[in-house]
Amino acid sequence: MKPSLLTFINVFTVEPANQERLVELLTQVTNVSVRHAPGFISCALHRSLDGTKVTMYAQWRSKEDYEAMRGDPRPLPYLQEALTIAKFEPCMYEVVGTFEPAAE
Amino acid sequence: MKPSLLTFINVFTVEPANQERLVELLTQVTNVSVRHAPGFISCALHRSLDGTKVTMYAQWRSKEDYEAMRGDPRPLPYLQEALTIAKFEPCMYEVVGTFEPAAE
Repeated sequence: MKPSLLTFINVFTVEPANQERLVELLTQVTNVSVRHAPGFISCALHRSLDGTKVTMYAQWRSKEDYEAMRGDPRPLPYLQEALTIAKFEPCMYEVVGTFEPAAE
Repeated sequence: MKPSLLTFINVFTVEPANQERLVELLTQVTNVSVRHAPGFISCALHRSLDGTKVTMYAQWRSKEDYEAMRGDPRPLPYLQEALTIAKFEPCMYEVVGTFEPAAE
């Protein structure tokens, strides 16, 4: 059986005045580190319309691949600045269902 | 300019003993109502590995389409049961970036 992908839905809570800066920092982290890591599959970065959240949705081959990336020192300056303006709530998931529009 | 899609990342917090039931209820809501709504594009349902969360990631054409679906009475029995076992935190987003693995 093919192992299922690991999905991270990481929610950052932020003051609306800092939302744009947080988006920049997470974009930089992804470009300097995450995209280059073995086992990284894809991710999408989201800005909440109310200004209070930024959420990264990311898929990885395995938890081991994700943890190996977390050992990379290059993104640390961006992450440290991010944590001065945001509260970070990470969570690991598996997909249990996907749904398309009904044919009617 | 083409308007961008609206993304909902709706996080439900639950006791681990109730996670499986919550997954069932949200699957039923999607099948009886959401999939049939005009403007629904796709969604994926996720179970956290620690048992404490269930998160629905959904894309819609517009906020108006989503709100029209919320007026449908068919999913209410499932949603009312879900709210007896879970805390619901909805959030509307726009995608600000997508990332693929770097070519190396």
